Amino acid sequence: MEIKKNIMVGQSGGPTAVINSSLAGVYKTACDMGIPKIYGMCFGVQGLIDEKYVDLSEYIKSMLDIEILKRTPSSFLGSCRYKLPDNIQKGNEIYEKIFSLLKKLNVGYFIYIGGNDSMDTIKKLSEYACLTESDIKFIGVPKTIDNDLAHTDHTPGFGSAAKYIAATMKEIIRDGLVYDQQSVTIVEIMGRNAGWLAGSAALSEGEDCEGADFIFLPEVPFDIDDVISKINNLQKRKKSIVIALSEGVKTPEGIYLAELEKTLGFEDSFGHKILTGAARYLAGVISKRLNCKTRAIELNTLQRCSSHISSRVDITEAFQCGGAGVQAALEGKSGVMITINRISDEPYQSNTSVFDISDIANIEKKVPISMIDTKNYTVTKEFTDYVRPLIQAEITPIMVDGLPRHITLTASADRPMY
Amino acid sequence: MEIKKNIMVGQSGGPTAVINSSLAGVYKTACDMGIPKIYGMCFGVQGLIDEKYVDLSEYIKSMLDIEILKRTPSSFLGSCRYKLPDNIQKGNEIYEKIFSLLKKLNVGYFIYIGGNDSMDTIKKLSEYACLTESDIKFIGVPKTIDNDLAHTDHTPGFGSAAKYIAATMKEIIRDGLVYDQQSVTIVEIMGRNAGWLAGSAALSEGEDCEGADFIFLPEVPFDIDDVISKINNLQKRKKSIVIALSEGVKTPEGIYLAELEKTLGFEDSFGHKILTGAARYLAGVISKRLNCKTRAIELNTLQRCSSHISSRVDITEAFQCGGAGVQAALEGKSGVMITINRISDEPYQSNTSVFDISDIANIEKKVPISMIDTKNYTVTKEFTDYVRPLIQAEITPIMVDGLPRHITLTASADRPMY
Repeated sequence: MEIKKNIMVGQSGGPTAVINSSLAGVYKTACDMGIPKIYGMCFGVQGLIDEKYVDLSEYIKSMLDIEILKRTPSSFLGSCRYKLPDNIQKGNEIYEKIFSLLKKLNVGYFIYIGGNDSMDTIKKLSEYACLTESDIKFIGVPKTIDNDLAHTDHTPGFGSAAKYIAATMKEIIRDGLVYDQQSVTIVEIMGRNAGWLAGSAALSEGEDCEGADFIFLPEVPFDIDDVISKINNLQKRKKSIVIALSEGVKTPEGIYLAELEKTLGFEDSFGHKILTGAARYLAGVISKRLNCKTRAIELNTLQRCSSHISSRVDITEAFQCGGAGVQAALEGKSGVMITINRISDEPYQSNTSVFDISDIANIEKKVPISMIDTKNYTVTKEFTDYVRPLIQAEITPIMVDGLPRHITLTASADRPMY
Repeated sequence: MEIKKNIMVGQSGGPTAVINSSLAGVYKTACDMGIPKIYGMCFGVQGLIDEKYVDLSEYIKSMLDIEILKRTPSSFLGSCRYKLPDNIQKGNEIYEKIFSLLKKLNVGYFIYIGGNDSMDTIKKLSEYACLTESDIKFIGVPKTIDNDLAHTDHTPGFGSAAKYIAATMKEIIRDGLVYDQQSVTIVEIMGRNAGWLAGSAALSEGEDCEGADFIFLPEVPFDIDDVISKINNLQKRKKSIVIALSEGVKTPEGIYLAELEKTLGFEDSFGHKILTGAARYLAGVISKRLNCKTRAIELNTLQRCSSHISSRVDITEAFQCGGAGVQAALEGKSGVMITINRISDEPYQSNTSVFDISDIANIEKKVPISMIDTKNYTVTKEFTDYVRPLIQAEITPIMVDGLPRHITLTASADRPMY
């Protein structure tokens, strides 16, 4: 069957190590299916409103390019944190602008790779399409290191971030052991409301590593007196203590530790507080109350862009989700997100399906209480059993002159950006 | 020739990704040479004074163990920051204690892997040996990510840290590009007095990356007004600006940026100030004066323990330096450090020799002015030409269950720690 409509793909929200693997999956499948034009919107839907887009075939010209794209961190097309208007009614200027551009470009399929907020965008666009009887298909492809999307076993991006966190924790734990003195190292890990990433620090435990001593998740209120007392107890038999601390940890009164550090952040356009400083705060308190050497380490953006140690399972699933998004659109689905289903743990196997986006957008999946050992401030075996398959195997970076090679989107005379 | 004396090896100062490769080199060469016992002091010379040591053959039992040791970051034997007494005279209690233990263990060769301060230890011990007519040979094996040791082309540990910094900078630069808005990201890099590590951020520049926009080294006074003005100018044509900032950068008045951040550190036992917060300070000033989004990223200990992306050149040279240390001791040399000589750049080749330790200990090698572009706040091609060979090629981590495998020193009933 000849396909006559074009496809438009975009990336949105925070970058990950594998979001471009999903883009590669969209591109490769769209090529294979014979979709005439594959457009990429620059800086997400916000850029699209400003008519910023590219013809991806001008940038991705070979199978080698596709391989490098899979290994390139961050969002190749650029991203945005833009919230579409809530009043989805005919004639709304923003929606009109988007749909008329899509019509002009003969786009029949619209794929958006992103997290919660991006699924909100797909939800609204597909609703607007219904309202205006447009036949453009809108599909969400999941992406977030936070792993907080509902109705999917996990999200692409999480496995690689978890692998980076676990590998880095092992290195930090070894680093902390070198001196024969009491010390507490606090590693601050991303995850505003869900502790999936902080919990992944538990994977560092194994035959060659004692693992993180305490793991604090945003799901559990942080009682500073109890924490100090537990650290103090552990210090009686252990010199170097390493703590994994979610940036989103709050006191029982609901105050972020980062706020106590008085580095009050500002809000992004979705109203999320930007947090930093939780580890510094805790290091300060421990140093003062237990009188020992402390060190605060923020993994910061490194944990979301470290494609040099990504998970092959994650890269592969991200690619598959991208391809499945194109398939779903061609099958006539719209207003859905691709989900990953875990078929078995041993050996790990997964496949994809689709789920109604209105049940996904704006819902945050937190770590369930069954996966948290609240008494000992750590996660349970159920948690590590769930995450471990997702960090398996590696994808070799393409090393050029000693460094990983990436592919970039740079406009030039022969490669126009519209 | 049968060797009847034993060897004692130790590690000292800050850990690196390859300090254990030097230990592996010492161990392998000592085994090959038929040295009867290979002892490792725990927690450096400070542990030795407390008679903490191990028989390394109890822990390193196979060629596979040696390979894993080469890939294990941080100091396998533990480390210390301990300064031997300055009054090197017969009967000094500390020296007597060390020498009598060495005599008891029939040690003829003493290898110490470390940086400036560790070479001070070798200098003093070899002087004490002269004074007391001991025939124990004392050899220093260089180690420091800071690359600040004199009379060696470079130091083991530097290449891997430089590779980590350059690879991470590439990822951070890509991460910064995702949003279509003005932002300044400041990456704080180790190096108290020498800018070798911060300068290595320049290696991120290449066909696929614009590289760091500004690099601030401790060798150049930091004029905040000029810096703000240059950033402001660049912002007229570039949205995402990424800065590499040495932790040791000071104002023209000699005040550390970190001190301006009012997070005044304490001093270690060698009197070095512990710094942190330079990037946070600069981010604050930029945010205030240029009214744009800023982000401070401290690479922290990650840059010295990231063996998951180490340089093969570095790992190999570290191993060679360890072996050369044993060779030098067996040849009867003492009071010397192993140095690396660069034989050629294209192709890169090096060998080792020895240098009198009294000309090395306590001297810091800074980045020469010829390698700094002070006007544009960056390093010159001479700098990158010097560093680039040292980050070449990779050594595959031995991945087990998704994570790099390390080897650890844990005492047990059948593996006693003395």
